[in-house]
Amino acid sequence: MAMAFHFHPLAATRVHLSPLPFAAAAAAGAPSPSSSSVAIAAPHHHHGRRRFSAVVATAAASAAATTEFDFKAYMGERAVAVNRALDAAIPAGEPPAALHDAMRYALLAGGKRVRPALCLAACAVVGGPEAWAMPAAAAVEMVHTMSLVHDDLPCMDDDDLRRGKPTCHVVYGEPIAVLAGDALLSLSFHHMASVGSYPPDVDPEKHPARVVRAIGELARCIGSEGLVAGQVVDLEMTGTSEPVPLERLEYIHLHKTAALLEASVVIGAIIGGGTDEQIERLRKYARSIGLLFQVVDDILDVTKSSEELGKTAGKDLASDKTTYPKLLGLEKSREFAEKLLSDAIEQLDCFDKEKAAPLLHLANYIAHRQN
Amino acid sequence: MAMAFHFHPLAATRVHLSPLPFAAAAAAGAPSPSSSSVAIAAPHHHHGRRRFSAVVATAAASAAATTEFDFKAYMGERAVAVNRALDAAIPAGEPPAALHDAMRYALLAGGKRVRPALCLAACAVVGGPEAWAMPAAAAVEMVHTMSLVHDDLPCMDDDDLRRGKPTCHVVYGEPIAVLAGDALLSLSFHHMASVGSYPPDVDPEKHPARVVRAIGELARCIGSEGLVAGQVVDLEMTGTSEPVPLERLEYIHLHKTAALLEASVVIGAIIGGGTDEQIERLRKYARSIGLLFQVVDDILDVTKSSEELGKTAGKDLASDKTTYPKLLGLEKSREFAEKLLSDAIEQLDCFDKEKAAPLLHLANYIAHRQN
Repeated sequence: MAMAFHFHPLAATRVHLSPLPFAAAAAAGAPSPSSSSVAIAAPHHHHGRRRFSAVVATAAASAAATTEFDFKAYMGERAVAVNRALDAAIPAGEPPAALHDAMRYALLAGGKRVRPALCLAACAVVGGPEAWAMPAAAAVEMVHTMSLVHDDLPCMDDDDLRRGKPTCHVVYGEPIAVLAGDALLSLSFHHMASVGSYPPDVDPEKHPARVVRAIGELARCIGSEGLVAGQVVDLEMTGTSEPVPLERLEYIHLHKTAALLEASVVIGAIIGGGTDEQIERLRKYARSIGLLFQVVDDILDVTKSSEELGKTAGKDLASDKTTYPKLLGLEKSREFAEKLLSDAIEQLDCFDKEKAAPLLHLANYIAHRQN
Repeated sequence: MAMAFHFHPLAATRVHLSPLPFAAAAAAGAPSPSSSSVAIAAPHHHHGRRRFSAVVATAAASAAATTEFDFKAYMGERAVAVNRALDAAIPAGEPPAALHDAMRYALLAGGKRVRPALCLAACAVVGGPEAWAMPAAAAVEMVHTMSLVHDDLPCMDDDDLRRGKPTCHVVYGEPIAVLAGDALLSLSFHHMASVGSYPPDVDPEKHPARVVRAIGELARCIGSEGLVAGQVVDLEMTGTSEPVPLERLEYIHLHKTAALLEASVVIGAIIGGGTDEQIERLRKYARSIGLLFQVVDDILDVTKSSEELGKTAGKDLASDKTTYPKLLGLEKSREFAEKLLSDAIEQLDCFDKEKAAPLLHLANYIAHRQN
């Protein structure tokens, strides 16, 4: 089968990207979010102060309906479970020790496990037991880590610091870093394909077809339709003196960041037994928060110090990289983030409010995180 | 699930590796193969001149029973079909163009498509339509190409020439070569998982479970139990002044070469609907030809010129790399190759002779190839 570009994210979200809506929103007196007051534990706090549109009103109502939801505890419990799965997936000290050490170093370096949480939450929102999605949740984190390890390489972004620690190639050398990335990538598929990764209560009739479909989604978001494509275009843009058009910037973010967030959500919904309609709703949710994630990343790079971020801050500006704040200004970038957030939350309307609470809070968290 | 080392190739083949059997065979007057007289079109020609053991007599009988088989035509037809599938799998000229060009450059650089042929032949020998295994055949070639592209990188083996052409990073630069490898790896899984890759006559009930199992086999042979593990240990050995023990050398070959050949055969048999017993027979066949492949590679590196090989010859010796000829001598290495060949052919006894002809001839070809 020809690998046509099935994923047309530009078409799907172009409507948000004209500068006009932001200007209109600003003229209408929409306040800029003062997101600094919002912590992980209270990601919906901000909603009370918004006077946006009907869409945002819906979001605010959803948030109000789930005030009891303890997002911090939810994320903490998932991170512990995911870390346990990741730890068990790679043998410590077994030969080749350098390879396994490097894989574990990169994979178990901390991080909030946002992608696995999205995967587990998407499985739950369609009614699947969360445990069914744990192998997929571990797999998306392996893929994410692999992309970080390769993007940090000297021949790529040449980054020395990641999550506050020296990057994989700094510790283990360049050849092992390349190979650890390759091994993490193949391990993600091995982990998803292995019968032994799943609890015994999966439906023996339906499970294999769901796994095949989920593996297809995961594979698609990595290569020339996903992470790798984004990195290629990002490298092409770096260091050029020409101004980078907004479409180009969006292409990079949708591929480098949004594609894997989308896959995380969609895979969870597939494994959980979601209907095609549910899966496509969640895909739209994920595309909005995917772009949102990167817009917020760009904003944080401008407004935060390296210490707060755990990575080299201001690097995008220093290397003359195009970012949303540079293209739109800080305030308009924040407004754009709010619009993406409300678009995402709108997609959750058709789900049970209680079951949708984690996805709602994850979207708010991605919008208002501080690092 | 912990990724324990399920694959214990050393245990499976250690019996062949003591120097004693070769010495005994030589004392018994076993002739050294004069493989230079054997062309692709007549890979079984050699058998008439052997006076080995009962095992070899069986092999010779199998070969005699399939004298009519046109191996050259068989391989030519498969290569054409596989190249067509590979060509269709990667869009030419579509963005990101540099990435797709690099992937196509590495993937469509020629080569005999031995791994895809093994995959298709294994599907056929268990009674499956060959067309069912074409996506898997394309996938194993993508994985093989990916490993070549990454192994050739400046930070790894630093090779400038591959299949007679400049290597991927020489033409497209190091970052694109790393990313093209990543994209080929993910594409292999995408291709295997996509419903659109398969003909419509696959069994809708059994097919998904077979694909999941096949993907698990493919994924396992790449990472820390396969190609990557072999490359890590290979890198550790390169340039050390200490003598490399035979067990270490075997580990490298079993992981760098045999693992993917094994997966190619096993995946074909799984997709074709082979029984567990058939699959394990074919796994043993593949392990023997896998090690055989590398022993022959080492022999060719000593005996052939760069022009004949299409890559830098004598490189292993020049870089002080341990090889079979260096450890055992050229004659004993050739005898070892013959032993592995007869072990492989023995595993085909339980299959229909006509259906097994391609696998028989592939084993002979791998033993007697000239480049």
